Amino acid sequence: MTELILALDFGGTKHTAGLIGRGETEFRARRQVISPANADGDYDLRTMLGLGHELLGGAQPAAVGVSFGGPVDYDTGTVKLSHHIPGWENRPLRQIITAEFGAPTNVDNDANVAAVGEHRFGAGRGCASLLYITVSTGVGGGWILNNRSWRGRDSMAGEFGHIMVDPLGPLCVCGSHGCVERLASGPYIGRRAREWLAVQPERGAILRRLVDDDLNAVDGKVVAEAAAQGDELAWESLAVSARALGQAIGSVANLINPERFVLGGGVTKSGERYWDLLRATARAAAMPEVSYEVVPAGLGDYAPLWGAVAIADEPPA
Amino acid sequence: MTELILALDFGGTKHTAGLIGRGETEFRARRQVISPANADGDYDLRTMLGLGHELLGGAQPAAVGVSFGGPVDYDTGTVKLSHHIPGWENRPLRQIITAEFGAPTNVDNDANVAAVGEHRFGAGRGCASLLYITVSTGVGGGWILNNRSWRGRDSMAGEFGHIMVDPLGPLCVCGSHGCVERLASGPYIGRRAREWLAVQPERGAILRRLVDDDLNAVDGKVVAEAAAQGDELAWESLAVSARALGQAIGSVANLINPERFVLGGGVTKSGERYWDLLRATARAAAMPEVSYEVVPAGLGDYAPLWGAVAIADEPPA
Repeated sequence: MTELILALDFGGTKHTAGLIGRGETEFRARRQVISPANADGDYDLRTMLGLGHELLGGAQPAAVGVSFGGPVDYDTGTVKLSHHIPGWENRPLRQIITAEFGAPTNVDNDANVAAVGEHRFGAGRGCASLLYITVSTGVGGGWILNNRSWRGRDSMAGEFGHIMVDPLGPLCVCGSHGCVERLASGPYIGRRAREWLAVQPERGAILRRLVDDDLNAVDGKVVAEAAAQGDELAWESLAVSARALGQAIGSVANLINPERFVLGGGVTKSGERYWDLLRATARAAAMPEVSYEVVPAGLGDYAPLWGAVAIADEPPA
Repeated sequence: MTELILALDFGGTKHTAGLIGRGETEFRARRQVISPANADGDYDLRTMLGLGHELLGGAQPAAVGVSFGGPVDYDTGTVKLSHHIPGWENRPLRQIITAEFGAPTNVDNDANVAAVGEHRFGAGRGCASLLYITVSTGVGGGWILNNRSWRGRDSMAGEFGHIMVDPLGPLCVCGSHGCVERLASGPYIGRRAREWLAVQPERGAILRRLVDDDLNAVDGKVVAEAAAQGDELAWESLAVSARALGQAIGSVANLINPERFVLGGGVTKSGERYWDLLRATARAAAMPEVSYEVVPAGLGDYAPLWGAVAIADEPPA
């Protein structure tokens, strides 16, 4: 009988569980729950354990892989905290899951897990080294080097979003200035456009129409839509994002020389013009002798769930 | 009888050879030759083979390690070119050395080899991951990850000098803008000071005195000396260098989270104020959760030679 692997993805706004047979290429079943606004660590955990038991229907998993949307100490499997949900501080998540399902468990943060997912099942297949980058509400990243996750001294490696691309750039939540995330993420694409709309009343007609003149409704997604329809103000805000990503990718290509950059997250769905500018900026910043590919992620929102399947099988740290 | 290891360091301006017994901590003998201005690949090779035979005195080495001052394809041991000396293009250096001395040979570029040297014998001992950075005529770097060299897809990893730290910065030899090297290396510390001296006649009195008012004599070293004596114009040029290095180190700490940064090269001998600014800038750019150390290199100019001893023993690629 095929052994069962349980994959759990604790997200900031939703939780997903999947059940798959070892070696299989499709989930046998998947369940997702959207978190209520007042969710906390206890709620998240109770919900996810419920989903797992529901999928297993009394069966015993051979291994469990867990993706968590926040910093994790991989060696101990302990969650440090969630930046979105209260009550997650220092929870020994691996220990809790192992006890609950009676199976060996690995836990890592979502960016690392998604990188493993893309490497094993998605746009990074056949690649010994890659940086997975996700650009949505924030900008995160995860490394595969020598076909394995690279986590670094404090399990903090992969913070691509906090490469400084402009020393005179705006203050970032991390305390630094001009970070990739501060320039490239969806919320800041929206914020920049709102600020420009407020002081340039003659511009952004298409964008204004799309939100019925309600500037508070301007977010990264509608900016991308307006840019696609030819709004130049909208495009300029997107372009800042594409250039920040491209500049950092070119620098990272020089520094680490990985085979591939795999880009996922909502912002990377901003169209061909966005990708062209991102790629051209990266190529200009990378040295001529340095080669690499920049490709869209293959697994979409399910990269962490697929990665959870892959890390379930890793030897314990 | 102790097996002999021959270490060869092909530099841009001088060649060094060393002979050591396996496991020993001091060279039995070392020889160095300064290259004439008209040296080429043939000259370099002939000189170095001569030094090797002189040191060996007819004995047979068990292994040879070679550091080369330019890009090398590690897998084949072929030199791609020298940026300083003509006639090095595509020389199969490993093959040549193996044939000459009848011993297994490994060849890598000087920054990677110096990183291995510092890791095994210098300021990186006991550290599983580090970036070695050398700041002198250029800015180079070499990675140790998981106690091994990380070379990347094209053997190009470690080009720390070509991280872009200022998108509006000056044009770099690599074709990009505002690279670390363009802001931090010795020649550009000198050039910046010269440019400022030319347009700020009332400033830089100490620096002017040190070069007897001959602005062409202003280089990175004399700028550091003037700054140490209290010249504020000189200090400002040094500060641009320290800030560029610090900013990039902070970003790399976030991206890779290595245990240590080991800094060598003449520019890093610019005094405590330089190091303080570099460290403070790095700390401000790194996320609070990311820890690392920034330390001076321990082996000075002999890092590549010690690294050559270490790579002599590596298994063939």
